[in-house]
Formats: sequence, structure tokens, C-alpha cells
Amino acid sequence: MNQTALPLSLGIDFGGTSVKFGVVQGHEVIAQAPAIATEDFNEAQPLIDAIVYVIEDLRAHHPEICAIGVGVPGFVDFETGNIHNLTNVKGWTNIALRDILQDRTKLPVAVENDANCMAYAEWKVGAGMGKDHLVCITLGTGVGGGIITHGHMLRGAHSVAGELGQTSIDYSGREGAYGNLGSLEDYIGNNEIAADARQTYAKHNIDKSITECTPAALSQAAAQGDQVAVEIWQGIAQKLACTVVNACWLLNPAAIIIGGGVAKAAHLLFDPLKDSIQKQLAPAFLNGLEIIPAQFSNDAGIIGAATLAREEASNVK
Amino acid sequence: MNQTALPLSLGIDFGGTSVKFGVVQGHEVIAQAPAIATEDFNEAQPLIDAIVYVIEDLRAHHPEICAIGVGVPGFVDFETGNIHNLTNVKGWTNIALRDILQDRTKLPVAVENDANCMAYAEWKVGAGMGKDHLVCITLGTGVGGGIITHGHMLRGAHSVAGELGQTSIDYSGREGAYGNLGSLEDYIGNNEIAADARQTYAKHNIDKSITECTPAALSQAAAQGDQVAVEIWQGIAQKLACTVVNACWLLNPAAIIIGGGVAKAAHLLFDPLKDSIQKQLAPAFLNGLEIIPAQFSNDAGIIGAATLAREEASNVK
Repeated sequence: MNQTALPLSLGIDFGGTSVKFGVVQGHEVIAQAPAIATEDFNEAQPLIDAIVYVIEDLRAHHPEICAIGVGVPGFVDFETGNIHNLTNVKGWTNIALRDILQDRTKLPVAVENDANCMAYAEWKVGAGMGKDHLVCITLGTGVGGGIITHGHMLRGAHSVAGELGQTSIDYSGREGAYGNLGSLEDYIGNNEIAADARQTYAKHNIDKSITECTPAALSQAAAQGDQVAVEIWQGIAQKLACTVVNACWLLNPAAIIIGGGVAKAAHLLFDPLKDSIQKQLAPAFLNGLEIIPAQFSNDAGIIGAATLAREEASNVK
Repeated sequence: MNQTALPLSLGIDFGGTSVKFGVVQGHEVIAQAPAIATEDFNEAQPLIDAIVYVIEDLRAHHPEICAIGVGVPGFVDFETGNIHNLTNVKGWTNIALRDILQDRTKLPVAVENDANCMAYAEWKVGAGMGKDHLVCITLGTGVGGGIITHGHMLRGAHSVAGELGQTSIDYSGREGAYGNLGSLEDYIGNNEIAADARQTYAKHNIDKSITECTPAALSQAAAQGDQVAVEIWQGIAQKLACTVVNACWLLNPAAIIIGGGVAKAAHLLFDPLKDSIQKQLAPAFLNGLEIIPAQFSNDAGIIGAATLAREEASNVK
């Protein structure tokens, strides 16, 4: 083994439908294992057993793995490693995942919210490297976020801070999952984009199916000159700008990093987004502010969880 | 002089219409000087001269003053002590106030945004004492804010963070001072409350003058059983709740502290506010969350600026 090699750590991206695994070195995933489908499990214990099985298999091939990080889709207390609740996975309420995995693997384990892991990856080894003040947003079925201020991840009183997707863009708007009115996620989550786009087409007397209105389909349509699709992207950008501008007034970040599937719309989203942000902030907030796409895509959660676990383990030593 | 006495510091509250001075010990203002009216000055230099005159007069009576803090109504770079711009005071753009005052007085000086000073007072010696995660909002002609996270004041990349009043509650709402759409201040600033209240009364076929619609007048009317006034307060609470809930999703604070003139409406504001917040957050965010009135009123800026200056001076040593 190369003496100067970067340490290896294992990142686990626990999503709503599958659990993915990657062995991470620096900013790269150097090995993966087949994902576990969560729908096959109705409770936590057998899924934990399956996760431990894959961990041990990866460790057999990569004995240098020094720490394990897990990103989970829900509220987790980072300090204790206890999962409060996973919205879309059955049987995951009040699970002390960190302690369980540490006990089973005898390795240091970190458990963190998935969007915070994405933010961690971009901050430590990605598009926001070297910046002390960052806001990261990830756009997909859900809209997640993570915040870095003064060179630290902002976690708050119970480690659940950074939920940009739940913040409101309309105080009397749509009612969301937590009774919250007008949450960004309820307007620019993948499904909401598609449903709203279909209605917008209908207003133009154009009949489209939901599958013709996915963010990917809307990108393609706009690229081919469909003006309705271009307008729809402007509407998405306007709503996202509201949350970004709010985060700027509150946090005065040096950069906003935007990732996830919807961000793949690239200039269709970023051009009107930047324009709208530029028009809505005082000069001191715009000074040097960057609006940039995330460096990592599907691997962001794995890389972030692994990086976090490695750094936490080295802090303990 | 008592050997165990708390150190004295001087707090200066630089407002839109006057500059107020107080000698502070612990959480008390033990001496004051007459305020200077800013309208008498068209540029910064003569006003600075007048401020230094009052400082030296107070020091003659209280030679133990060890530091000077200034809270200013605008954007200031706390690290350098340079004022970017004061919105409502003529001639105050790019003024290196900290260096100027340090040079003239030979004392350590701190210059900070006025709402951050209010937050600092509540955090260090007021309603939020001992808490590491706080959001403070001050309601008046303008709506200001200050944020404490992880035991530090959150200042951001250019020291201008914490502007809760500029955040949007409606992505397509009223256009504010910085081109920002739907800012909280543009709905619940004193003047906006009065103007909107007058319209609400008009809808009920009740003719009221603007002076009958001030927050103080609306409080009195509601206390006397005026149901329209009660409804108006509920509307104010609903809008304020939007910004508070957003701050909770982003920052996960342990307490929200609300001060300023409008907060004097007490239960008329706090009851519907707490109710609306309770309905719009996930349990992990509501866990232990306190919504409390500020301890300090008119003196908050003086006490905060003085406390900040004293702590900064002792950190340097």
C-alpha cells in the first residue's frame, strides 16, 4: 500500500428507495457495492443487517477503510447519531443508527441528514472548497439544503437546521407536509414542477401528459425552442430565487451551490435565477456572491457522508 | 471605587433621527447624555465631532469607561468597523467609523448593525442569556434582526447577515427598498401596518385616520374589544410567523426573541404568532422552542453596543 495514499472511508447514501455504498478517497468513489432496495424491508432491523453485510464485504476488499458515514433522508441528531424519523422509509423512527453501526463494525460512524452530506461534499472537496460561508440546495423529488457559516456546518439546537426546501415563499400558499404554508418544495419538487407545467400548457391549450412535463422533458422542450417550457423554467427560477435571496439576507454567504436533478437544466434555470437574485439584494450581499452548480451529482451523498466520517474520526483522535 | 465592580463601557445607539448615549454596567444603563438630533447634520464629519464631544464629557464623569460600542442603522463591516451606508442618515457612505473613533478617543471601539446590537444585548445579558442558538427580531419603522448560532453571532461573508426584515414572505409580493419582492418589513413595518389597517377598516366601512391605525392605537382598540383590530393583529402575526418559521427551518434556534414597539402588543401578537408557528414546523424544530418578548426596550441598542465593545476589548487583551 502506498504510504502517502489518502485515507479511505465508506459513504452510505440512504435514500427513499435504495441504500447506496461507495468507498471514497479524496473526492472520488473508488469502489461501489450493489445498492439495497429499501422497499424489500418493512422494519429497520433486517435492513440494518443487510447494510452491515455490505459494509463487511467492502471492508474485506478494502481493509484500510477507517470510518463510515451515513446520509439519511430525514431528521437526525448529528451529536447523538439518533434518527428522529425517515419520512419515506418504513419503521425508521427513533433509531440509534450510529451506536448500532459502531457496535457492529467497531469503526467510527457518523450519521447525518442527506442534504447536509451533499453540502459537506461540496464544501470540503467540491464546488465550494475553501469557502467559509456557503448555502447548498439540492433539487429533486424533495428540495434539501445545507449551510456552512464561519467555517462550520450550521446544525442548530437539535442538529436539524438547513431545511431550505421547507421554507416558505408565500405566507398564504400551499400547505406542506408539516402544515407549513407555501414551502419551496411544494412548488419546485419534481412532481410539483410536472403538475404545474401540465396546467401551464393547458392554459395555452396544449395537452401534455405528466411524463412530458418532467424537469428533464421541460429542459429538452425549452432547448428545442418551446417558449412555454422557457417560461416554466423562468417561473421555477423566480420561486427558487425567493428562497436563495432569503438565505442571503439571513446568512450573507460567499456562494450558493445548486445541485440535484433539476439543476441539470443549466442555463435555463441559472440565467433567470441569477438575474432575479441580482435584482433583489443590497450591494453588500452581492459583493463577490457566486451562484454555482454543484460539482457532484449522484455521488454527492456518498462522498459527503464518507468525507464527514473521515474528518469526524480524525477530530476525535 | 469598588474593586469588584463590573467594568463600564459606553454604548451609542445611532438611530435614523438621533444619536443616544449610555454608560452601561452589566445589564443596566447607569448614566446617559442628551441625545444628538441627526437632522441638524448634513454630513458625517461635524456629527462625528459632536459624538466625540459627548463621549469625552461622559468619560470625564466616568473615567472607568473601558470601551465604546456603536450600533448603526445600516450595513457595516464588523471586522473593519467601516460603515457601508446608512439608509436614513445623510452623508454616511464608506465611513471608517471605528478607526476614526479609536483615533480620537484612544479607546477600543466596536461598530455593529443596530439590530445585531439588540440581539447581542438579549443574548449576553437579556432574555436569551445562556442560549447558543437564538433568532432576534426587532419590530418598528423597520424590521431588523440578529442571529446567534453555535454560541457566536452569525455575521456571514461580509458581516451583513441577519436581515430578517428584508426576507420575503411572498415571492411575487410588494417591491421593497432593494428591489426585493414581498419583504416582511414592507408588510409589518409601523407605517405599512397603519396603511394596511386603514384599508382593512375601510373594507368594513369604518373610516379611520392613519394616526388611529398606528400599532399602539390598534393595540388599544383591540384591548377594548374592536374585532377588526383583533383581526389586523392576527394578520400581522401570520406574516411575522412566516419569517420566524423560515428562520427555524434554516437555523433551528432554541429561542425566538421579539422586541421593538410592535412587540408591545403582547398577547395580541404573541398568541396568534405562537399558534401559527406551532402549526408549521416539524416536531424536532418545536422541541423546546421558546417564543419570548425581548427583555430590553429603548435601551437595547445602547446595552448591546456597550456589551459588545466590552467583550471585544477583553478578547483582544
